[in-house]
Amino acid sequence: MLTVRNARVATMTGAQAAAGNAPLGLIEDGAVACDGERIVYVGPSGGAPAGGEIIDARGRFLTPGFVDPHTHLVFAGDRAGEHAQRLAGATYLEIAARGGGIRSTVEATRAATDEALLESARRRRQRMLRSGVTTVEVKTGYGLSVADELRLLRIACSLEGVVPTLLGLHAVPPGMERARWVAEVCEDLTPEAARRGARGCDAFLEQGAFTASECRAALEAGRRAGLVPHLHADQLTAGGGAQLAANLGCASADHLEKTNAAGIAAIARAGTTAVLLPLAAFFLKQQPASAVKFLEAGVTVALGSNVNPGSQRIESVSMLLAAGCLLSGLTPAQALWACTAGGARALRLDDRGVLQPGKRADLVLFSTSDPDHLPYHAGVEHAEAVIQGGKILGTPFGDTLK
Amino acid sequence: MLTVRNARVATMTGAQAAAGNAPLGLIEDGAVACDGERIVYVGPSGGAPAGGEIIDARGRFLTPGFVDPHTHLVFAGDRAGEHAQRLAGATYLEIAARGGGIRSTVEATRAATDEALLESARRRRQRMLRSGVTTVEVKTGYGLSVADELRLLRIACSLEGVVPTLLGLHAVPPGMERARWVAEVCEDLTPEAARRGARGCDAFLEQGAFTASECRAALEAGRRAGLVPHLHADQLTAGGGAQLAANLGCASADHLEKTNAAGIAAIARAGTTAVLLPLAAFFLKQQPASAVKFLEAGVTVALGSNVNPGSQRIESVSMLLAAGCLLSGLTPAQALWACTAGGARALRLDDRGVLQPGKRADLVLFSTSDPDHLPYHAGVEHAEAVIQGGKILGTPFGDTLK
Repeated sequence: MLTVRNARVATMTGAQAAAGNAPLGLIEDGAVACDGERIVYVGPSGGAPAGGEIIDARGRFLTPGFVDPHTHLVFAGDRAGEHAQRLAGATYLEIAARGGGIRSTVEATRAATDEALLESARRRRQRMLRSGVTTVEVKTGYGLSVADELRLLRIACSLEGVVPTLLGLHAVPPGMERARWVAEVCEDLTPEAARRGARGCDAFLEQGAFTASECRAALEAGRRAGLVPHLHADQLTAGGGAQLAANLGCASADHLEKTNAAGIAAIARAGTTAVLLPLAAFFLKQQPASAVKFLEAGVTVALGSNVNPGSQRIESVSMLLAAGCLLSGLTPAQALWACTAGGARALRLDDRGVLQPGKRADLVLFSTSDPDHLPYHAGVEHAEAVIQGGKILGTPFGDTLK
Repeated sequence: MLTVRNARVATMTGAQAAAGNAPLGLIEDGAVACDGERIVYVGPSGGAPAGGEIIDARGRFLTPGFVDPHTHLVFAGDRAGEHAQRLAGATYLEIAARGGGIRSTVEATRAATDEALLESARRRRQRMLRSGVTTVEVKTGYGLSVADELRLLRIACSLEGVVPTLLGLHAVPPGMERARWVAEVCEDLTPEAARRGARGCDAFLEQGAFTASECRAALEAGRRAGLVPHLHADQLTAGGGAQLAANLGCASADHLEKTNAAGIAAIARAGTTAVLLPLAAFFLKQQPASAVKFLEAGVTVALGSNVNPGSQRIESVSMLLAAGCLLSGLTPAQALWACTAGGARALRLDDRGVLQPGKRADLVLFSTSDPDHLPYHAGVEHAEAVIQGGKILGTPFGDTLK
């Protein structure tokens, strides 16, 4: 038994769209007790079960472990030079003509050893874990052959606290006819990936990437194989992505920078979570999606980091919270809810994201008592102790004090 | 003697406005040797003096210590709640009516003990130092009485690697007639601050703050006392701030979000450095100043963090570089130049900001060889070793690897 006592406990059981701290479902002077990998008590410190290991939170803020529902964490190659070219004014097409873009990551990833891929992904995963992200979704998509995609899936599965997603339709493999790749993804890759541990499937609906009918085919194949469907939708162009995600019963529609009112209404009806990725919009100098209109329509909003080598390389949880507030228009409490309960919903993980008996013992104890401090004093990670599956991961940084 | 060998040395002796890596003045396989607090050699590793302590950089990137020319680092009180109110839609006036704004920091700062003020400022200073900022300008301005301003100055002077600036005209002290405060600043505070170690003087020209004639009086008093003048100019409204800064011979004009072409031309003629503060614009959801038009006009551009409790609380150097690129339009090399040579020029510190014999032995060795990596993989601090005045401050973080 492990009990955190005297904490400001954010159960994340409030309504996300509510004002002030209501989304957090706060218990002042609260306790959370864990038995093995599960939570067994959430309530006032006075009523917590006795015995076992005790952490005295001294009034500090305690949340569920953060759930990042959208990353491309397994890759080789550094596209910093491409980012610099873009900053100097190069267009996407010019960069692609110079050998940049997704394909450059595919080449570097294919050329890297398993060990190198695993080691670099593990370092990224470790930094995120230390700052409180106990669950990370990780997409494949830089393999672009059946064998290479399954290899990336294997590496993703070997990381701790990862939810692996097959992103078969990320780009057309160099030298392959697109219809053939779509068929391979649907007929061969998807069922095999499901057997080998993939939990979700995803596709990149965009001009220059894949069409609605191609994405539909891939996600329907995924659903048949028992995978949870997601869709990269409406990032660069309004392509009816939200509607398609709703139509396919996707757990999440991700990006949504260009989604119109009809698209928002469609995902509201379907119960699809909107995964907003404000740091990607920041990185690409795009207009970020406003969370407000999604919340007003009754859509659950999650925040994802979208860590990837091409269009977003900021892993910082505190910067994601800051961007969720400053760029997406969430309040601090709504952003915290989006990074916990929202992320869990986006991945259809019923066992986490909120603090209740029976849920996974994933907790973050921060160095402050004030939830508003986290997106305010950003750029510093404030997680003081991270508990994953009931195990304490210790003090992550030496300098997390205010 | 301390020598860093086999480094990619960025001397920062290139022209800031140049394309690609030209601003960096790179020496490949270079060395920098320091004797005590001074640099004695900058050139190819092969020609470096023998003996003393050697750091093998193994090809990694070496820069001058970063110079942050604009902070308000000494304060008490946390305005996270005010930031949350602003995110929820409250206006500046509503926040002020609820007791927020600069005056709330003044109250908290006056109420704090010297020890508490020093300890919190030291923690902030330490985080910045670890990520490579060897010189930080620190403004007073939360005292608002002669005695309280001198107290803040004393605390700023007791921090390491700090350039203290008197910001007398920050706000009108509660309950005092404005003309009286301006007179006290000019006649009493400024000469006394100069005697007690202030190096610069500053004033806040803005609607609701101080007028051009009030700022002129304060900065002229500062110049008479031997202080280097700076001006908070054109942040929220185009108030002819750049022109006033140029007219007064200011070392820097800071903010400049609303500066027009005539203002840019004026500071170009005067040789006044433009200190851009893109993280403040990000934090306040303002349109940031574009560096491009300043560079095109021949103005030197520096980047400042503007760390302060009200309108910018992000201390991260890597986020400042990222914001300098993504929000202000600098290339990575220009942003690095702005954070080193640019900062030194903004403070008229001729002894640092570039790597040349005779300059201060302030160096940062990064964990990457690629300058483009720093604003790309932002949110992680990449300084691996920081050398300040010839002393190695060691490996700052355990997890700075790519």
